[in-house]
Amino acid sequence: MTRALRLHPDRLFPSDSTQRDIARALYAEVGGLPIVSPHGHTDPRWFAEDSRWQNATELLLAPDHYVFRMLYSQGVALDDLAIPSRAGTPATDPRAAWRVFADHYHLFRGTPSRLWLDHVFAEVFGFDVALEAGTADLYYDRINEQLATPAFRARALFDRFGIEFLATTEGADDPLESHRRIRESGWGGRVVTTYRPDGVIDVEHEQFQPAMARFAELTGEDVWSWQGYLAAHRKRRADFRAAGATATDHGHPSARTANLSAAEAEALFGRIANGGWDAADAELFRAQMLTEMAKMSVEDGMVMQLHPGSFRNHNRQLFASHGRDKGADIPMRADFVSALQPLLDVVGNDPRFTLILFTLDETTYARELAPLAGHYPCLRLGPAWWFHDSPEGMMRYREMTTETAGFYNTVGFNDDTRAFLSIPARHDVARRIDCHYLARLVAEHRLEDWEAAELARDLTVGLVRKAYKL
Amino acid sequence: MTRALRLHPDRLFPSDSTQRDIARALYAEVGGLPIVSPHGHTDPRWFAEDSRWQNATELLLAPDHYVFRMLYSQGVALDDLAIPSRAGTPATDPRAAWRVFADHYHLFRGTPSRLWLDHVFAEVFGFDVALEAGTADLYYDRINEQLATPAFRARALFDRFGIEFLATTEGADDPLESHRRIRESGWGGRVVTTYRPDGVIDVEHEQFQPAMARFAELTGEDVWSWQGYLAAHRKRRADFRAAGATATDHGHPSARTANLSAAEAEALFGRIANGGWDAADAELFRAQMLTEMAKMSVEDGMVMQLHPGSFRNHNRQLFASHGRDKGADIPMRADFVSALQPLLDVVGNDPRFTLILFTLDETTYARELAPLAGHYPCLRLGPAWWFHDSPEGMMRYREMTTETAGFYNTVGFNDDTRAFLSIPARHDVARRIDCHYLARLVAEHRLEDWEAAELARDLTVGLVRKAYKL
Amino acid sequence: MTRALRLHPDRLFPSDSTQRDIARALYAEVGGLPIVSPHGHTDPRWFAEDSRWQNATELLLAPDHYVFRMLYSQGVALDDLAIPSRAGTPATDPRAAWRVFADHYHLFRGTPSRLWLDHVFAEVFGFDVALEAGTADLYYDRINEQLATPAFRARALFDRFGIEFLATTEGADDPLESHRRIRESGWGGRVVTTYRPDGVIDVEHEQFQPAMARFAELTGEDVWSWQGYLAAHRKRRADFRAAGATATDHGHPSARTANLSAAEAEALFGRIANGGWDAADAELFRAQMLTEMAKMSVEDGMVMQLHPGSFRNHNRQLFASHGRDKGADIPMRADFVSALQPLLDVVGNDPRFTLILFTLDETTYARELAPLAGHYPCLRLGPAWWFHDSPEGMMRYREMTTETAGFYNTVGFNDDTRAFLSIPARHDVARRIDCHYLARLVAEHRLEDWEAAELARDLTVGLVRKAYKL
Repeated sequence: MTRALRLHPDRLFPSDSTQRDIARALYAEVGGLPIVSPHGHTDPRWFAEDSRWQNATELLLAPDHYVFRMLYSQGVALDDLAIPSRAGTPATDPRAAWRVFADHYHLFRGTPSRLWLDHVFAEVFGFDVALEAGTADLYYDRINEQLATPAFRARALFDRFGIEFLATTEGADDPLESHRRIRESGWGGRVVTTYRPDGVIDVEHEQFQPAMARFAELTGEDVWSWQGYLAAHRKRRADFRAAGATATDHGHPSARTANLSAAEAEALFGRIANGGWDAADAELFRAQMLTEMAKMSVEDGMVMQLHPGSFRNHNRQLFASHGRDKGADIPMRADFVSALQPLLDVVGNDPRFTLILFTLDETTYARELAPLAGHYPCLRLGPAWWFHDSPEGMMRYREMTTETAGFYNTVGFNDDTRAFLSIPARHDVARRIDCHYLARLVAEHRLEDWEAAELARDLTVGLVRKAYKL
Repeated sequence: MTRALRLHPDRLFPSDSTQRDIARALYAEVGGLPIVSPHGHTDPRWFAEDSRWQNATELLLAPDHYVFRMLYSQGVALDDLAIPSRAGTPATDPRAAWRVFADHYHLFRGTPSRLWLDHVFAEVFGFDVALEAGTADLYYDRINEQLATPAFRARALFDRFGIEFLATTEGADDPLESHRRIRESGWGGRVVTTYRPDGVIDVEHEQFQPAMARFAELTGEDVWSWQGYLAAHRKRRADFRAAGATATDHGHPSARTANLSAAEAEALFGRIANGGWDAADAELFRAQMLTEMAKMSVEDGMVMQLHPGSFRNHNRQLFASHGRDKGADIPMRADFVSALQPLLDVVGNDPRFTLILFTLDETTYARELAPLAGHYPCLRLGPAWWFHDSPEGMMRYREMTTETAGFYNTVGFNDDTRAFLSIPARHDVARRIDCHYLARLVAEHRLEDWEAAELARDLTVGLVRKAYKL
Repeated sequence: MTRALRLHPDRLFPSDSTQRDIARALYAEVGGLPIVSPHGHTDPRWFAEDSRWQNATELLLAPDHYVFRMLYSQGVALDDLAIPSRAGTPATDPRAAWRVFADHYHLFRGTPSRLWLDHVFAEVFGFDVALEAGTADLYYDRINEQLATPAFRARALFDRFGIEFLATTEGADDPLESHRRIRESGWGGRVVTTYRPDGVIDVEHEQFQPAMARFAELTGEDVWSWQGYLAAHRKRRADFRAAGATATDHGHPSARTANLSAAEAEALFGRIANGGWDAADAELFRAQMLTEMAKMSVEDGMVMQLHPGSFRNHNRQLFASHGRDKGADIPMRADFVSALQPLLDVVGNDPRFTLILFTLDETTYARELAPLAGHYPCLRLGPAWWFHDSPEGMMRYREMTTETAGFYNTVGFNDDTRAFLSIPARHDVARRIDCHYLARLVAEHRLEDWEAAELARDLTVGLVRKAYKL
C-alpha cells in the first residue's frame, strides 16, 4: 500500500484553535514573501554555469550530511549511499543508494530533514505519495526526468524559489571566479559572496600552507610578515566587497578573542609564520584575528559573523577514510562572556560595527547571548543554528532570547545550507515557527495582533535586510 | 492613529480553554492578596521622607537599567536618555529623553519590561492609549501632573499597592538612618532592611577601603583584625535585626564557599587587611565569609540569601564613563555542587539555618539546585531571578525545579527591584504565571483542583512568610 | 473530610482536545503491552525466595530515597521515618513512621513520586481515598493485610504487573546465587542480571579491597596482575551471560574514557594494585576500564551502559551517620564530547558494539548526546534518567533529542528502580508522555497518525528489545 504525501497547510502551527487561527493569519502575510538568504553554502558555480544535476542521489543524498549521518548512525555503510571517500566516489549504483535511503526513510521521523525533504518532494518535484521502499524507483525516475528539463536548472529554480538575495561563502584564497561570471552573465539573480578567512587564520587546519600560498598570490602581499598579512586581508576584503559581499564569517572552535598589543601580535604572528607555534598560540592567533577582523569591519563596514563551538571531525577513523563534513562535527560547551570581552573592549560601543553571534550551545541563549546582545550596540543574535535549526530548536531560541534581547536584536533567518533545493523548505519552517511563537504571545495577551503582524514581516525580511546592510 | 492600551484580564494565562478556566479560577483567589516583598532595592529614603517624584523620565526611565540597556543596545546614546554618567546628569531635557523612549517603545515587544510598563501606565496612571511617538507628550504631561498630587507620594502608593511587607537592602556600612526615621514616623508601612555586607567582604570592590572605614566607625571594632572584623559583623547584624531585618543577602561572583581552619582564616584575613592579597585570596575570602555568615545565621536566626553569578560591569568603556548598574552585568556559568559543599559541611543539616539560593544560570535548576534543595534541610530555592524574572523564565523555573524539589522548597516571589512603581506589576506577572503552571498540572490531571488552590495561595503569601520568618 | 483518590484516564495527556484525542488513541494501543525492564535495581532474592513484605513502611518508605530525601529536606528526621543508619534500624514504630509520611504527603505535589505512589495505592492496593493524616492508619492497615496474602508475594506481583523481562544489577563480586535459584526454581518469570563491575574498578570506593578479594575468589585469577585482572573480568562476564545477562552497566563520576597503550595501562594498574595511586590515577583507571569493557563487549556481544555524572554522598555528615543511597547524590555538569573520544577511537565504528548513554545533565541532550548518537553507529541514548525520569523531564528529553538523533537512536524506557511496586507506574508514566509527545507532533502535522502508532509501539517494546538484544 502506498502512503499519501501531503504538506498540511497548518503544519507547525499550534493545534490550539485560538493560537492556530492567529498563526494562520500571520503566515498568510509572510508565507509568500521573497527569500533573503544572507548566509549559506551553495556552490556559486551552479549559478555561474546554470548547472543541472544528474540524479536524485547526487542532488539530495550525497551532499547532505544531515541525511547520511543519520543513516550511518543506524549502521548503513557510507559506500552503500554512494558517499565519496578520500579514495573517490564508490562504484555504488546511485539508484541502489537511493533505494537504501528510501528503505530507511522512517529514521527521519520527527527530524527537520524529514520536513525539508518532504517539502522538496511535494513542492519542487510534485510527488503525492510518500517515499518508502515501494516508491523508491518511482521517486528516482521522476526526479531524474525532471532534473533533465530546463525548469530544473540552477537559475530557473532560483527564480522559481523567489530568492531575492543569496550569499555564498568563499575562503580568503578563492579567486571569486564564479561570482565574476555570474555578474558578467547578465542574469538578474543576486548571488554574492561572504569573506570567510578561516583557512588562512587557523594554522591547525591541514590546508593552511597552500591556502596561504594562494592568499599571497592573489594579493601580491608578503603574507608571512604581520603587516603584509594584514594588508592582504584588507585587499581581499575589498575584492569580496567588489563581488557584492556585505559580510564576513568566522567558524572558530571557540568564541575566544584577544586584544594584544601591536608588538605582542607581531611576535605571535612570527611564531605562526615560522612554525614555532603550539596549540595555545594557534588558539590565541585565532582569538587575535577576530579582533583584527572586527577592526577592519569598523573601517570597511562589513558585517561580521561568528560561528563558534563545533568540534570538527570527531570521528577520527571516518576522517581518515572520508575526510571533512561527514556528519561527525559535534557541538561543544561554549562561553561568550569572558571570550568576547577583549574584542568588545576595542569595538563594542562603536556604532559602525555589527557582530552577529551564533551558537551550538543553547545554554548560552538566555544566560549569555541575550544579555550581551541586549546591551552592546554592536551585537546581534543570529538565528538558531545547525542542529537547532528545527521546529523545537527555533522555538527554544525564541523562548530563551526574546525576553532579554527582544526581537530587534535578532537578524531573521539563515538557511546555512549547501542543499539548494531545501532553501524554500527551510525558510518556510522558520516562518511557520515564528508565526507559531507570535501566535502564542498574542493568544496569551502578551502582544497585540497588529504588533505580531509587524513582527512577522520584520522577522521574515525586515531585520535581515537591515542587519546585513542589503 | 492612536492605539489602545489594554491589560487583558486573561493575560499570561494559557489560551487552551480548559487550562484558561482553571487559571482564571486560581487567579481569582490570589490576584488580590497583599504584596509580600522580602527582597528588593527600593530606596528607604522615599518612605522616610514620603518622597514625590519630579517627572516621568526621572521616575521610570533613568533608574531602570532593564529599559535603558535595551535602548542602548539599539544605538540610542545614554545621554539622550538623560542617564547620569560619572560626569553628572546630562543636560538633556527630560521631556526629550521621554520622547526618545516613546519612539523606541516597540523594542520592548515580547519583553517583561513591556508587561511591567504597560501595567504601570494603565493601572497606576490610568492610561488607555498605548505609548508611542504620537502619545509621548500626553504621557509625559499626565504622568507629571499626577506625580505632583498627594496620591502619588511614596507612602500613598505603598498603601495603594497593598504592600504588606517591603525589604530594602543596605550595606554593612550603612547607618540605617532612613529606617530609623520610618520607624519613628508613626507611619504604619512595614519597610525593613536586609544585611548586605558585600562591600566589606569583597576586597576587589573599588569602595572596599571607605566601606571598611565606615564599618569600623559604626561598630567601634578593630575591623582590621580578624576577631574585630567578625565582631563588627555581629554588631551590625544585631543593628539590622533591630531595624526589622530578618535576612542577609550576598551577591558574589560565584557560589564558592570555604571551610578554613581558624588559623587559615586568620592568616587569609591578614593578607586581605595588609594589602598582600591576590585574586585567589579575594575569592577565597569571599568563600570563607559565606561560611562565617552562615555560622552567624545559625546563632542569630537571620535567613541567608545568595545571589551569585553575575559578571559585573562587563562593558569597560561604559564603566569608565558611566559607572555601575548600567545594564552591562552579564550572567556567567555557575556551579553549586562543589561550591557549596564546604559551607554545607558545617551547617547543612542544622535545623536553625536557612539558605535561599538564586541563580542566573538556568542549567543549574534541574541539575544542581533542585536536587540540593530536595535534600538539604537548610536549602530553599529563590524564585527566577533578574533576566529570568519573566513569563518564559518563570515557567522554565517551575518546570525545571518542581519535580525534584517540590513546591515547598521554594519561597514565593521576589521582585528584586528598585523600580518602585513596577512592584505590583511584577507580583501580578508572577501570580499569573504560577496560576498558568498550576492550571496545566490540573488540566493534565497531575494535581487536584483543591491542591492547586492551596498551592496558589502558598506560592503567593504562605511560603514567603515562612521562609523569611515574617 | 476524606479526599478521593482517582487516577484520571487522561492523566499526563495534553488538555488541548485535538492532541488529547490523538494521545488517547495512541495510548489505547500501548498502555496494555508487557513491561520490558532492561535496567533496574530490584533485589533478585525477592524472586528467588518469592518474598513477602512485612508492612507499608518497610515496603514503600524505607527503601525509596526519592521519598525520604524530600521529607528530610523539609526537616523530618530520618529516624522518625524508620530509615536505617549505620547504627542499624531505629526503634521507630513503623506505623508512626507511616503517619509522619502521610502527614507530609502534600510535599510531593507536582513530583513524580506522587504519581508513582498514587498509582501504587490505587492500582496495586485498591485505595479510593487519598493518603493524608486522616487516612494514614487506614492505609497502613489495609496495605499490611494485603501484603500478608499470596497475591502480594513477589512472583505473583511480577506476573500481575505483566513483566516480560526484568534485569537486576549485580557487582563483579556477586556469586549470582539468587539468579541461579530463580532459574532452577522452574518459575517462568524472566529475571536476569547485569554486569556492574564498578566495585572492582573504582579504587576510591571504600569497599574496593573486599570486592577485589571476592573477585579473585570467584574467578581463581590473580586479580592483582593486569592480565589476571582482565581475565577475571572476562570470566565474570561469561558467568553473567550464563545467568541471562545481555548488558553491562557502569556508574562512573564522569564519562571520561582513555585509550592507553598496553604498557601504560599495565603501569597504571600497577599503581592501582600497589596502592601508589592518586586521584588522577583513579580517574584515569576508570577511564581506561571503560575502553577495556568496550573491547570485551565487542568480543562477547554484551551491550554497554554508561551512567555518569552523579556526585555521590554529597552530604558528608549524613554519609558518616547513614551511609550511601540516602538521597544525597547530586548531578554534576557533564562532558561527553571530549570524554568519549578515546573509546570511540577504538570501537566507535564497530558494528558489533552498542553503548547506551545516560546523563544527569540535560544540557548535553541537544548539544552533545543527540549529535553523537545521530552519527556514531555504536551509540544509543538511554531514556531520561533519575531526577529527569518525570513528566517534564521525559518531555524535555524527547524535545531535545528527537530532532537530531531521531527516535530510532533511543532505546525505550528504563525504570531504574529498586521500588518494585512502582514499576508499572513508572512504565505507565513513560508511555503516557511518549503518547503526549507523539500526539503533539501529529496535531502539528509533523508526523502522520499511522507513523505515530508505529512509533508508540516501538518506544514501548520494539526499541528496548532490539537495543538490549532480548
